[in-house]
Amino acid sequence: VKRASTAEKVELKPIGLVETRATRDEVRNRSTTSRLILREDFTEALQGIDDFSHLFVVFWMHEVSSRERKTVKVHPRGRADMPLTGVFATRTQLRPNPIGLTLVELLDVKDHVLTVRGLDAFDGTPILDIKPFDPSDTAREVRVPEWWTRLERERSKKHQGSKYTPIVRGTA
Amino acid sequence: VKRASTAEKVELKPIGLVETRATRDEVRNRSTTSRLILREDFTEALQGIDDFSHLFVVFWMHEVSSRERKTVKVHPRGRADMPLTGVFATRTQLRPNPIGLTLVELLDVKDHVLTVRGLDAFDGTPILDIKPFDPSDTAREVRVPEWWTRLERERSKKHQGSKYTPIVRGTA
Repeated sequence: VKRASTAEKVELKPIGLVETRATRDEVRNRSTTSRLILREDFTEALQGIDDFSHLFVVFWMHEVSSRERKTVKVHPRGRADMPLTGVFATRTQLRPNPIGLTLVELLDVKDHVLTVRGLDAFDGTPILDIKPFDPSDTAREVRVPEWWTRLERERSKKHQGSKYTPIVRGTA
Repeated sequence: VKRASTAEKVELKPIGLVETRATRDEVRNRSTTSRLILREDFTEALQGIDDFSHLFVVFWMHEVSSRERKTVKVHPRGRADMPLTGVFATRTQLRPNPIGLTLVELLDVKDHVLTVRGLDAFDGTPILDIKPFDPSDTAREVRVPEWWTRLERERSKKHQGSKYTPIVRGTA
């Protein structure tokens, strides 16, 4: 096994682009549907994906600037009332490698196009990878910070009575 | 919002390297512990991470060759008795962008070093990102293919009586 060096650069090529009508805050609504338009030559690489109900979409947050990539700490959701937290302890897009990771529900597959629900990526976002979700991606006893629980409680309240589906609380 | 093009290359720089004594098949044992040695200047970017019990480690499978990245279909786990499946419908390392994604348990944090359990990455693997796991990364009603269930059943049987912890089956 060859050890790598942190100085070596990693080069990726997008496998497709996100297509969605949702703009700004709308993409954060978990009932949003999007289409993943892959390169046509990946049609066969999707064979059997419809046997999975959920996928991880790995995407590239291409609008994060090199300056923003140097961010070390943030207030979660940009809120001053949340504790200053290291970027690796949050899901902020302001991180050294702005890779997005979102669990989505697979609604439809047709040729090289996937329709999914729950992707919080903007129209035109490059897709880096798609991985099927399986039960080993789940943790049993999950512990999260107090600020996370507080934000989630506000979110559920805001979306009460709408079509929004509150997320599963796991066993936390 | 600027639309990207699939022709644009994405450039990443590792944030650290995996350190583990496990070799070959041992890395696939979910009780394996590893250390994530981040770059020293990322110490502050970890602030608050110990409030999470679980993390996603996003890593770069640097030993996959450019030829292997062109793989379209595989037999899961290389087994001829499993159906030929598109790479995006499996977790094979043979994929266009060989990004690894594994949920791990966070055991310890000290300065720029994290100790984790359950990472299936070799010693010297470049780490691209670390994301805290929260309940929105979990799906409620999960459907997986028959081949996945068959492989997992074999795995549980093999590890019976060992220290191996069978994975959570979610609500599948």
